[in-house]
Amino acid sequence: MTTLQNDTFLRALLRQSTDYTPLWLMRQAGRYLPEYRDTRARAGSFLQLCKNTELATEVTLQPLDRFALDAAILFSDILTVPDAMGLGLFFAEGEGPKFERPARDEAAIRALAVPDMHKLQYVFDAVASIRKALNGRVPLIGFSGSPYTLACYMIEGGGSDDYRRIKTMMYDRPDLLHHMLQVNADTVTAYLNEQIKAGAQAVQIFDSWGGSLPYGKYQEFSLAYMKQIVAGLIREHDGRRVPVIVFTKGGGLWLEDIADTGCDAIGLDWTVDLADARRRVGERVALQGNFDPVALFAQPAAIETEVARLLESYGTGAGHVFNLGHGISQFTPPAHVDALVNAVHQLSRKFHGNPA
Amino acid sequence: MTTLQNDTFLRALLRQSTDYTPLWLMRQAGRYLPEYRDTRARAGSFLQLCKNTELATEVTLQPLDRFALDAAILFSDILTVPDAMGLGLFFAEGEGPKFERPARDEAAIRALAVPDMHKLQYVFDAVASIRKALNGRVPLIGFSGSPYTLACYMIEGGGSDDYRRIKTMMYDRPDLLHHMLQVNADTVTAYLNEQIKAGAQAVQIFDSWGGSLPYGKYQEFSLAYMKQIVAGLIREHDGRRVPVIVFTKGGGLWLEDIADTGCDAIGLDWTVDLADARRRVGERVALQGNFDPVALFAQPAAIETEVARLLESYGTGAGHVFNLGHGISQFTPPAHVDALVNAVHQLSRKFHGNPA
Repeated sequence: MTTLQNDTFLRALLRQSTDYTPLWLMRQAGRYLPEYRDTRARAGSFLQLCKNTELATEVTLQPLDRFALDAAILFSDILTVPDAMGLGLFFAEGEGPKFERPARDEAAIRALAVPDMHKLQYVFDAVASIRKALNGRVPLIGFSGSPYTLACYMIEGGGSDDYRRIKTMMYDRPDLLHHMLQVNADTVTAYLNEQIKAGAQAVQIFDSWGGSLPYGKYQEFSLAYMKQIVAGLIREHDGRRVPVIVFTKGGGLWLEDIADTGCDAIGLDWTVDLADARRRVGERVALQGNFDPVALFAQPAAIETEVARLLESYGTGAGHVFNLGHGISQFTPPAHVDALVNAVHQLSRKFHGNPA
Repeated sequence: MTTLQNDTFLRALLRQSTDYTPLWLMRQAGRYLPEYRDTRARAGSFLQLCKNTELATEVTLQPLDRFALDAAILFSDILTVPDAMGLGLFFAEGEGPKFERPARDEAAIRALAVPDMHKLQYVFDAVASIRKALNGRVPLIGFSGSPYTLACYMIEGGGSDDYRRIKTMMYDRPDLLHHMLQVNADTVTAYLNEQIKAGAQAVQIFDSWGGSLPYGKYQEFSLAYMKQIVAGLIREHDGRRVPVIVFTKGGGLWLEDIADTGCDAIGLDWTVDLADARRRVGERVALQGNFDPVALFAQPAAIETEVARLLESYGTGAGHVFNLGHGISQFTPPAHVDALVNAVHQLSRKFHGNPA
């Protein structure tokens, strides 16, 4: 194995001391980068880009060539999983992801099963290729959508304003939704374990829509399945701990419950006060976040002020990975990302016992 | 003055004992009712409906004729206020509200001023007319958008996915945004006081978008101005306390701060656990909420289960007004609303020391 030259990110996730606060950005390889848009144009479509090992590797590394980020994240999409289940993922131009065959009725849902992982081999090939291309520069993060978030798309057939179909099923036919969620949880566990075996050095579960659930329903229909996944993951690989990050957007009220999943770190959106979150979860988990992605439209001076405010809020010591509170906007000026990355690296040193 | 025949809602807001848990529904007069759609068609447009005293009175009373609701709410729109400031409100069919002249640059924002309240006379006329038509049946709620929520529309020029314009201003030119928010706060104070003088017996401030702010920014740019408004409101009128409800959608993390505004009650969305919210705010305020509006698509049996769960969560004693956690969907079956209203009234009696 190649030696990891920068393990700051992995150390912070495990609450071990670091020289500075590491950072990566959700959706860091994406449309805000002109070089990404070029590669995507060459690939033909978003899905073809995900399925092309060479090009997926290329776009994963693009943000690292521009910015001093402390981790790479596999370029892929959470909806590769229901696609492998046979739902027929496609991207209508300007409309976001859709499924040709959403799983809405009892027959369709009862027919769901954990797909053969060979159908997702292109993802594991991308992981292996990216690890090789990284050559130990920074760690590689693998990821999956949460069972509930995947179910939202599988039932609604695409994005939704109110998640009316899945929520109606949750209230009227909880048994049916639980069946789908169990299939999803088993699938995600296998999927993330294959990513880990292929070389992912940390994994994140994206629970993008769990935060739209009422209190109680979140615990039953989203969190319980993420807990199952965490319990089923390979946690040591190649002699190193593989940390797990759980990110529920809008989950700030439920941090104690999220920490109970057994994850190593909780991803936070920007509504959460880092100081308060740290008090609430204590020594149990690391915290990742939580810069408002829209603040990247502000001028560099204002970006630095916000970075300083967040670092101050977390305070001294280990256990903070800097990130956005949600994915970066496609309209973000890349120069502002540079300002963010430099501010985090420079301003955080004093919180780790180093001169600024 | 006509005697109020049902003051359950007002008593609950003031944490006084009641026989059952009162309820009303955000957007209870609206498109899910066929009689509303008929009246709106007669009015010509949504704005003409708001400005027609007789028709605004008619639609306000429609849900009360169907359901045993414990309060009426003025039929109007939060954007009447920036319209009175000269921004030119219009509704593009199927697109939601828009402004012809959004206030985006320094000159436009510095030119903003508290409008002459005569421009909003149609609202106060509607309040007086509705009070008369209610004839003491139930209390009438007046309302306004919060200064920050109004500013979102005034700057963006309509709805937005990410509030990029207003947030960029917040980070880069906080002085300018504060100027707009101060004008809005002064306007809303005057506007709500005129509604109270015209007959509104309680008022609610709708902070629909404050929940999209980062921690700290919410306190500075949304909450501080709502606190100013609460301090400036007429709190006694015609020998009766006029309760104030503050509702920040997505504000569940900040309940202690919201209680500090001096409001009588806090509106909660469905992500908040009522039991936990009650522990956090103690005896300081009443709580209003927090049924998931999408749960109204479930069958009546499931609706009753959810009602029972919420009532159980709040527990025994005074201080709970049942409501949705957000406005009712236009696609809601009216029969399901009936199931909700009956369930709340019947199932809540035992929590108030009465046989079921």
